[in-house]
Amino acid sequence: MKAEILAVGTEILLGDIVNTNAHYLANRLKELGIFVYYQGVVGDNTKRIIDELDLAFKRSDIVITTGGLGPTKDDLTKEAAAEYFNKKLILNEEELKKIEEFFNRRNIKITENNRKQALIPEGALVLINPNGTAPGCIIEEDDKILIILPGPPNEMKPMYEKTVLPYLQKKQECTLVSKTLRMIGIPEGTMADMVSSYLDLENPTVAPYAKDNDVILRITAKARDINTGKKILEPVENEIRGILGGFIYGEDEDTIEDVFGAYLVENDIKIATAESCTGGLLAGRIINYPGISKVFGEGYITYSNEAKVKNLGVSEKTLAEFGAVSKETAMEMAQGAALKSGADLGISTTGIAGPAGGTPDKIVGLVYVGLYYNGIVKYKELKLSGNRQKVRSRAVNEALSFAYKEIKD
Amino acid sequence: MKAEILAVGTEILLGDIVNTNAHYLANRLKELGIFVYYQGVVGDNTKRIIDELDLAFKRSDIVITTGGLGPTKDDLTKEAAAEYFNKKLILNEEELKKIEEFFNRRNIKITENNRKQALIPEGALVLINPNGTAPGCIIEEDDKILIILPGPPNEMKPMYEKTVLPYLQKKQECTLVSKTLRMIGIPEGTMADMVSSYLDLENPTVAPYAKDNDVILRITAKARDINTGKKILEPVENEIRGILGGFIYGEDEDTIEDVFGAYLVENDIKIATAESCTGGLLAGRIINYPGISKVFGEGYITYSNEAKVKNLGVSEKTLAEFGAVSKETAMEMAQGAALKSGADLGISTTGIAGPAGGTPDKIVGLVYVGLYYNGIVKYKELKLSGNRQKVRSRAVNEALSFAYKEIKD
Repeated sequence: MKAEILAVGTEILLGDIVNTNAHYLANRLKELGIFVYYQGVVGDNTKRIIDELDLAFKRSDIVITTGGLGPTKDDLTKEAAAEYFNKKLILNEEELKKIEEFFNRRNIKITENNRKQALIPEGALVLINPNGTAPGCIIEEDDKILIILPGPPNEMKPMYEKTVLPYLQKKQECTLVSKTLRMIGIPEGTMADMVSSYLDLENPTVAPYAKDNDVILRITAKARDINTGKKILEPVENEIRGILGGFIYGEDEDTIEDVFGAYLVENDIKIATAESCTGGLLAGRIINYPGISKVFGEGYITYSNEAKVKNLGVSEKTLAEFGAVSKETAMEMAQGAALKSGADLGISTTGIAGPAGGTPDKIVGLVYVGLYYNGIVKYKELKLSGNRQKVRSRAVNEALSFAYKEIKD
Repeated sequence: MKAEILAVGTEILLGDIVNTNAHYLANRLKELGIFVYYQGVVGDNTKRIIDELDLAFKRSDIVITTGGLGPTKDDLTKEAAAEYFNKKLILNEEELKKIEEFFNRRNIKITENNRKQALIPEGALVLINPNGTAPGCIIEEDDKILIILPGPPNEMKPMYEKTVLPYLQKKQECTLVSKTLRMIGIPEGTMADMVSSYLDLENPTVAPYAKDNDVILRITAKARDINTGKKILEPVENEIRGILGGFIYGEDEDTIEDVFGAYLVENDIKIATAESCTGGLLAGRIINYPGISKVFGEGYITYSNEAKVKNLGVSEKTLAEFGAVSKETAMEMAQGAALKSGADLGISTTGIAGPAGGTPDKIVGLVYVGLYYNGIVKYKELKLSGNRQKVRSRAVNEALSFAYKEIKD
């Protein structure tokens, strides 16, 4: 089945509110294997709502509207739906009673406007609203299913959960199984190239995308039941893991810091950080992992040369000879952090985040990551692009991925 | 003029990401007096994109698309637009050079996919992308204007600001003058209440919103020219400053760390940080300010009690008697950081970011900020809501706003 989501509300067209309902519904419909090919937003105008319904039902089996069920003259979704299906609006006594009770409890006088919320298109299935006065409804006619939901997310979501979801599950006789592979240290385009022959598959589908600093590949299988779905998904997942394995750090909701942090805790690897250009952001990301206190005791932010010498024991000779932004300084910083704190693993960053401070030799974006692990010191040279904040957050990501790879290998 | 916003991207249809671009563009178009009657979302499919363009141009003068400019086979917006307007896609040498430079700098081999991003429909106006490899473009034909923008908001927004906004202003024969007031330490609802009588103005418009941790008020005047716009804007801005003055820390693109950092540098106030629950994020934010190295030399991340004692000189008695999460520890940490580093100002954080670690006495979200300034020690107790990451980032914001107010007064 194909569905279309239509938000009704001038406040969305004017940019007053973000259409998070479409996001929520798209996600929930995907779980059921109901495909959404279009989402739309239309203003509070009967003719335009009817035109959109007409268009949507030419392309889709199910249309879900959100919004336009309020008590004001501007709220026109049910009116437009009734006109589109050529049905009368009938006062629903049960819903009217609930609305009256709602106002009585609050000692507010009910107005004619509020009564309008109890009007339901003839023959429609009423969807009760646990969090508000506006009921939703479902109109089924000629293979068309129109599901009318309220706009406020705190009313729409529980209504979907309690009434629409069971309704759609019955209609739909298939399910989706999906797996998200998360990668680091590879550009989206390169990753897509490496698995290009899989991107045209129909079942499972394989779709690349990038989000924040992660590069992501989602594999989705459609089947009658979960087990069949897994059988369709797994061989493709295994082949893709064979190709991209080295870059994959986790799956589904994993983050690099969670995977890294869990590995450190599990293997009791004590860690310390020494940061110059990232200035605390690396430690800040590592500490995102809730259990990290077992292995992370302290970190150093050594922005000045003095602090690098005093707090980490970087030698003044190294700083004079190679400069603060050098592999030599990075390695001494990493080693200093580990030795000072008695950690097994020390990670350091030193670089030029910009906008100023670059030279022809050492350009803005040049960052060294130092790594000390069980007595061995290594480094990685990075040439990062973007503004100051981008360079710094990319340096953190690269440092995490470098450290994770090194300790795992 | 009427405009329509069309987001292209299966990831929106599948509910992977929220379509915040439509919200942003709707808001910006409203300022120009360009009306948006429809917003749509369509998947990465050439035929469906063309159908949507066809439909949109039947109803609107301008269509703005976002998304589908990436390097993969799934990215089809320009291809569909070229087909719709019956134009060839031509390789733009200048954009290709930029893409090649981008990859060279990162020592990554460029692929054929990446080259595809430099293809531009024949005769289109190229819109440069300051934050990414995908240029946008504008196609003008037969009274139709198609504006093609990239999907990632951090690329789309600056492209709109720098290239689309001036283009549309010329078309609209009007200009916008706007001022953004940035506040901290006040909830959005309270702020909106305080200036409620201004929110219905038509010119200038006054619109409150919240973003990240800032509470923002944007005042926008529409006029034939900039001077007239300023004359419309300024009296209202002055009145609003009279009402909200105490909460306003900056305007337009200011961030709290820039305003704070600039103040420190200007007044030569040396600063050091000592962080437990925020674990580096506070220093990380302070170091966002590019000139900060003049006053920031070092910071300490003392996650364990041992590190608090060893690196900051917090007394073991204080830790035993009041605990690590206490005003006493926070104040000793702030003082320790300042004295150890010879700074004038020490800021500390210690708290329970969760999800575990809370007790009936000290609940998750309890954070103490310590402040040492010129020999005087103070603290602030915070009870923050949200998950671990939210609590930590809110603690950073509160610490910055607390410190800024204290040193300014």
